Amino acid sequence: MCHTCDDHPEHAPAEPGRREILKMAGAGLAAAAPLLGALSADNAQAAVAASALGQSPFPVRAYGARSAGGRIAPLQIQRRALTPHDVLIDVLYAGICHSDIHAVRGDWGAPSLPIVPGHEILGRVLAIGNQVTKFKVGEIAGVGCMVDSCGTCENCLADREQICLKGTTFTYDSPDRISGGHTFGGYSDRIVVGERFAIRIPPGMDLVSTAPILCAGITTFSPLRHWRVRPGQRVAVVGLGGLGHMAVKLAVAERADVTVFTTTPGKIADAARLGAREALLWLDAAAMRRLANAFDLMISTVPYAFDVQPFMDMLKLDATFVNVGLGEARGINPASMAFGRKSLAGSMIGGIAETQAVIDHCFARNIRPDIELIRPDQIDAAYERVVNKDVRYRFVIDFASTK
Amino acid sequence: MCHTCDDHPEHAPAEPGRREILKMAGAGLAAAAPLLGALSADNAQAAVAASALGQSPFPVRAYGARSAGGRIAPLQIQRRALTPHDVLIDVLYAGICHSDIHAVRGDWGAPSLPIVPGHEILGRVLAIGNQVTKFKVGEIAGVGCMVDSCGTCENCLADREQICLKGTTFTYDSPDRISGGHTFGGYSDRIVVGERFAIRIPPGMDLVSTAPILCAGITTFSPLRHWRVRPGQRVAVVGLGGLGHMAVKLAVAERADVTVFTTTPGKIADAARLGAREALLWLDAAAMRRLANAFDLMISTVPYAFDVQPFMDMLKLDATFVNVGLGEARGINPASMAFGRKSLAGSMIGGIAETQAVIDHCFARNIRPDIELIRPDQIDAAYERVVNKDVRYRFVIDFASTK
Repeated sequence: MCHTCDDHPEHAPAEPGRREILKMAGAGLAAAAPLLGALSADNAQAAVAASALGQSPFPVRAYGARSAGGRIAPLQIQRRALTPHDVLIDVLYAGICHSDIHAVRGDWGAPSLPIVPGHEILGRVLAIGNQVTKFKVGEIAGVGCMVDSCGTCENCLADREQICLKGTTFTYDSPDRISGGHTFGGYSDRIVVGERFAIRIPPGMDLVSTAPILCAGITTFSPLRHWRVRPGQRVAVVGLGGLGHMAVKLAVAERADVTVFTTTPGKIADAARLGAREALLWLDAAAMRRLANAFDLMISTVPYAFDVQPFMDMLKLDATFVNVGLGEARGINPASMAFGRKSLAGSMIGGIAETQAVIDHCFARNIRPDIELIRPDQIDAAYERVVNKDVRYRFVIDFASTK
Repeated sequence: MCHTCDDHPEHAPAEPGRREILKMAGAGLAAAAPLLGALSADNAQAAVAASALGQSPFPVRAYGARSAGGRIAPLQIQRRALTPHDVLIDVLYAGICHSDIHAVRGDWGAPSLPIVPGHEILGRVLAIGNQVTKFKVGEIAGVGCMVDSCGTCENCLADREQICLKGTTFTYDSPDRISGGHTFGGYSDRIVVGERFAIRIPPGMDLVSTAPILCAGITTFSPLRHWRVRPGQRVAVVGLGGLGHMAVKLAVAERADVTVFTTTPGKIADAARLGAREALLWLDAAAMRRLANAFDLMISTVPYAFDVQPFMDMLKLDATFVNVGLGEARGINPASMAFGRKSLAGSMIGGIAETQAVIDHCFARNIRPDIELIRPDQIDAAYERVVNKDVRYRFVIDFASTK
């Protein structure tokens, strides 16, 4: 199901309802939490209830793999007690990123087990630490690919927490600075995260389709901003998947002239629907020759090794091919690169401020990922479909309907 | 001999002397050349004499190879009759670039034969076409790596003639738009070139050591400018040869903090003499780890394939590794590049305006290549020494003393 409607019960932001409050109150512990701060009268009842959860580490239902390459199945994990700056988020939706599959399958190294993926997370704030200022209970928050960083190195100070010189803590399968062990991601009922790494979701923003912006969106938004794409410039998007379709939407929104390269004939028509002027099959050599020196920026979302030179040949003088898909770019001809002062660059997600910016930008311009909503018990099947390029264009796991 | 003195007879710029005028007049043809324009009284005699050479194609003594990988030996080539915008230059000095060796040996494809290399050329203007405004007879001119381009494409119009979309004509072994056949370079007594591609050498500039600026200088100056190196920034120079030693001198002149990587222990001390703060052996793994995320810009002048990832790891966030040596950069880790939004870029020489700028810049700051002057019959031996990294730091062929 490709989500386009606006009538989902979770679309509208909501004050914490009776149902959540009762659920929280029912968790068992009654003592007031000293770490939970003074709250407005509106939130006081929710805060008291939430304290029950925040007092000590607590069990959470999650979906993950117990072995590298293993099935995604229900399991129980522990979340930490809230620190003064933490927010506790009740997860409503979690996107499935190709990275989740790489991580579970050990493509990038053996995962820490069990592994609970998920770094496109959207949910409702259930409780907050007593020094939290960024959120109130009941508001909607997002969590992307990272949950902690040193906060003091030159990159963190430059809003580049994703490149923390002391080591970014990623949302899952990353050493956890606070709890020890490793981090668990968004395929879970609840998550605890420092407010610095939680993103404000504007009231009125569509909830079901927003989660993928937190990885697929920021990953493609950041290079468009960094390399300063301007109206009328020619941008190529290589690979039309979760990241690629966001790259097209975001570049079109900048009024760039967008060309898509895909290996899937069935996606040619989609590219036009997404706003691209032209879509070409990967190995259309004649078209690629015609497009020599045509592009101001190329963004590759390809997650496997590929021969990059035919694409480099389509860059203009001084232009850049940005590899956000992390596929190995093989076969570079150094003379050809030098001849056009061309660059091959990497880029990975974006900082927290930039992630907030892409959320606000997508809300203001009504840019929504195309998603297909699935149940948690369909994750394994969805992984197969992602690998087989059979998703239009992002799976989102619906935890909201399980509550 | 490492050139440092200032007393060479060719150092001072000169009005055309009796010797040149007589030489020109002695070439045989006496008719005034209609294509040679009105000249000042000072230049009239020289122009009349020069017309003898400019009227029709004329033979020139050169040094080149008759087969790929063959010995460099004397041979005779033909230079074209001057067009209205041409200048005829009496070659005094020609640098030996590693590219010359690659070209002669067919490392980049079979050369057109005979091949006469040389794209660091300095000489005195002997004659000019009647529409030439940039030079007077007797002035000193330089010719770098290119001699023609379309002049109308967007790259040419942006002063990037080296990346002409219709094909730059390089100084040697390149299809010749005007004469047909292929171009012959600076290992020759005389060269004819359109004034647009001849560089003005400021009066008073040292002649013996200036030629290498026309390739080694511009090739390293251009990326320092393009990537906006500022005082205090950390710049690494990888490979300390003809290009590398100019990169160090030019970066130091920008008050950058320069580190050199070399494979040759004997060059460590040279790096300090050239102004680098630090010089390291290529495989000093401990030092390379210490320098993780240290550099704002790295310039590689390495002409053979090498593993680039250890160098990429030393780049700061958003920084660039520029490969001007055209060695294949192998072993890129796409995740590592993405993690620091790092770039691998190519760069090749610079446009004509920028080549003029580096000449003027080096003159103003007294930046001179370190050269070793050789006779034309020593070219083959010099090639061997270049390949064996046994030159400090550029061979210059002395044609002046043969005249």
